Amino acid sequence: METLAIPLPANLPPDVCTEITKRACYCDAAIVKSRYRQDSNCLEIDLQGPGASGDVAAKLEHLIGKMQVERLAVTPKILRERSFESGAFSAKAYEELVEQGGLWVSGQGTVGRSGAFMGLLNRLDGLLERLAAREFQAVSQSYNSLVPSDWLRRAGYFASFPHSVTFAVHLKEDFEAIERFGQRHRQGEDPVFEDVGEIAPPEYCLSPAVCYHTYGALMGQSLPAGTVSAFTAHGRCFRYESKNLTGLDRLWEFSMREIVWLGVRDEVLAARERAINVIWRLVELLDLSARLETACDPFFASDFPSLRFFQLANDLKYELKVDISPDVSIACASFNYHERFFGTRFEIGAGDGEPAHTGCAAFGLERLLYACVCQHGLKRAVELVENAAERL
Amino acid sequence: METLAIPLPANLPPDVCTEITKRACYCDAAIVKSRYRQDSNCLEIDLQGPGASGDVAAKLEHLIGKMQVERLAVTPKILRERSFESGAFSAKAYEELVEQGGLWVSGQGTVGRSGAFMGLLNRLDGLLERLAAREFQAVSQSYNSLVPSDWLRRAGYFASFPHSVTFAVHLKEDFEAIERFGQRHRQGEDPVFEDVGEIAPPEYCLSPAVCYHTYGALMGQSLPAGTVSAFTAHGRCFRYESKNLTGLDRLWEFSMREIVWLGVRDEVLAARERAINVIWRLVELLDLSARLETACDPFFASDFPSLRFFQLANDLKYELKVDISPDVSIACASFNYHERFFGTRFEIGAGDGEPAHTGCAAFGLERLLYACVCQHGLKRAVELVENAAERL
Repeated sequence: METLAIPLPANLPPDVCTEITKRACYCDAAIVKSRYRQDSNCLEIDLQGPGASGDVAAKLEHLIGKMQVERLAVTPKILRERSFESGAFSAKAYEELVEQGGLWVSGQGTVGRSGAFMGLLNRLDGLLERLAAREFQAVSQSYNSLVPSDWLRRAGYFASFPHSVTFAVHLKEDFEAIERFGQRHRQGEDPVFEDVGEIAPPEYCLSPAVCYHTYGALMGQSLPAGTVSAFTAHGRCFRYESKNLTGLDRLWEFSMREIVWLGVRDEVLAARERAINVIWRLVELLDLSARLETACDPFFASDFPSLRFFQLANDLKYELKVDISPDVSIACASFNYHERFFGTRFEIGAGDGEPAHTGCAAFGLERLLYACVCQHGLKRAVELVENAAERL
Repeated sequence: METLAIPLPANLPPDVCTEITKRACYCDAAIVKSRYRQDSNCLEIDLQGPGASGDVAAKLEHLIGKMQVERLAVTPKILRERSFESGAFSAKAYEELVEQGGLWVSGQGTVGRSGAFMGLLNRLDGLLERLAAREFQAVSQSYNSLVPSDWLRRAGYFASFPHSVTFAVHLKEDFEAIERFGQRHRQGEDPVFEDVGEIAPPEYCLSPAVCYHTYGALMGQSLPAGTVSAFTAHGRCFRYESKNLTGLDRLWEFSMREIVWLGVRDEVLAARERAINVIWRLVELLDLSARLETACDPFFASDFPSLRFFQLANDLKYELKVDISPDVSIACASFNYHERFFGTRFEIGAGDGEPAHTGCAAFGLERLLYACVCQHGLKRAVELVENAAERL
């Protein structure tokens, strides 16, 4: 194992350093781990395999160059903050869930759920679904995991998040080629493709968020005027995160509950504000040490500086960050306002002849429960979720 | 549009002709539709695009040759049968679900669910989960849609069902390559891969059935002696079916509830028998015109003759076929016994030092509900499922 230290430019905001550390894993398959060393302001990279370090260093410097924020710096704002009093974080929350909670690892960034953990997930999801119905008269839906590539294309996903897309591909319809593939794997080999022509172009991907389905389902329609339309759904979402996929805080396949609003600007913004108020009450009932702050999406390198600036400067994205240790927090929910972006791209009208404004609240259920168990332990987390379900 | 007629060999069993008709779609991307013409004992193929017909005919003859059953013919047996009295099939069940039931098409073989249809799915799934707990003390689990390719490899899936696998692939970790992919799609193009080296080898696929997860989760373990271990889970399953993906009876992504048994031979077989008895009671409560018959899996061409013979001759697979019109039925559930196949491949011991025998009951929820609506209409289907949930 070889370790590289790559200096970072001075005065980069801490959230940019964190993002660069995460993106580093996508630079080369030889990278096993990346760490941000605040003391020396450098990126520390563990490599496996021989002699690729010069090439990797060049790629990392290229990445850092592309992600530099320069004169566009905007500091994230903290809007709400809450510390919990009991104070002791469990360093073994993950182990506790595995040993007693019914959580098990089935592979890289993929887990199975049963027992207490499955019960907690269902309870929390049911609670959020009821809130969506009560506060927004949201229509409940059940979408697919497969999402048409066309919908992600409309959302600009392949340009902004190419690193995290999971494509759903199948063998191209060709009798001899399928037979050859079958024959090649008759001795029990791992699947490999011989040539890109063997697979059909990816007309579907795995959905990275629930709300793309809402926009897709409404494509070409015009919504009733003078009101906000609300939908809610639970679904499995997929974001490939390479070597960042560890433990329960970063899964390739995770459970998301989303509430989506469509309508005119002020009403969508008011709905988002109302959701924040209700969810902050949930944060209190779960007695969480947490904060709500402005944030940006994990755009890939080239998109990063300008889109980060745009999102932060316009308060388009708020994240609920919940602490999992005294100095680490994870994003467990986001509250987003997209202006007319999706209304335009999916040709959804707002009743006034103009494209609809949209917004959404998205909850990462495994993450929220994991943070809760880190702060309170499994037994108390079950009681707190139970209590919240009765009182909210 | 050009139409080809390919003669079939005389005296092929009807279920083999049906399978050949389905497999035909995988022979060439130019094939739009295939039909079995019983009167002339031929395969009728619609083609799009110019001048490929000679090549396609050769591929189809190759397919038919590989799927010929010759001296291995075994006729499927009907074990139970039931006709419903009310008698009138709705030809508009699908349209009724779309218009009033909350079903909508989101793409090829993919549907969205809300309203009555989503309610029916949840109700039916809950009913089956409770039956699994009551009859078999089954442990309830929640698995992923992503399944390690290694698990499908162990199950021989890539050799037997290469045509229907959905691979979950992502871009290989390489900064320049990911940047290039992003740049290439900046103008809103559909995603394409330039070269097979651009994507990482598929370490994950989308699960074609729930039970692979059960075997994967138990890999390398030894189960308690002298009893049968039972698990149940609901999950989305994925089988790419090319041009056969139409309506609600054949979805690329569908909902499956499964019950899995592991243990010694006689107890696994007894559990399967018991499941059949309980489910036949459900068939009666839903007042379905249906039959239970021996069946075989949809193996690709080269595997077909011997594996079909093996499954049919050894009563390894029973299918619940439910009528959707006076002369068409669809498989809505299967009851399988795998001998020691999965116990051996996944190294699961049965407590006696030998690999476990396994079996499973699998329910295709959309299909079962669709058949119910075909036979009774949506309103009555809701009442019947409700009634069954109370009485079973």
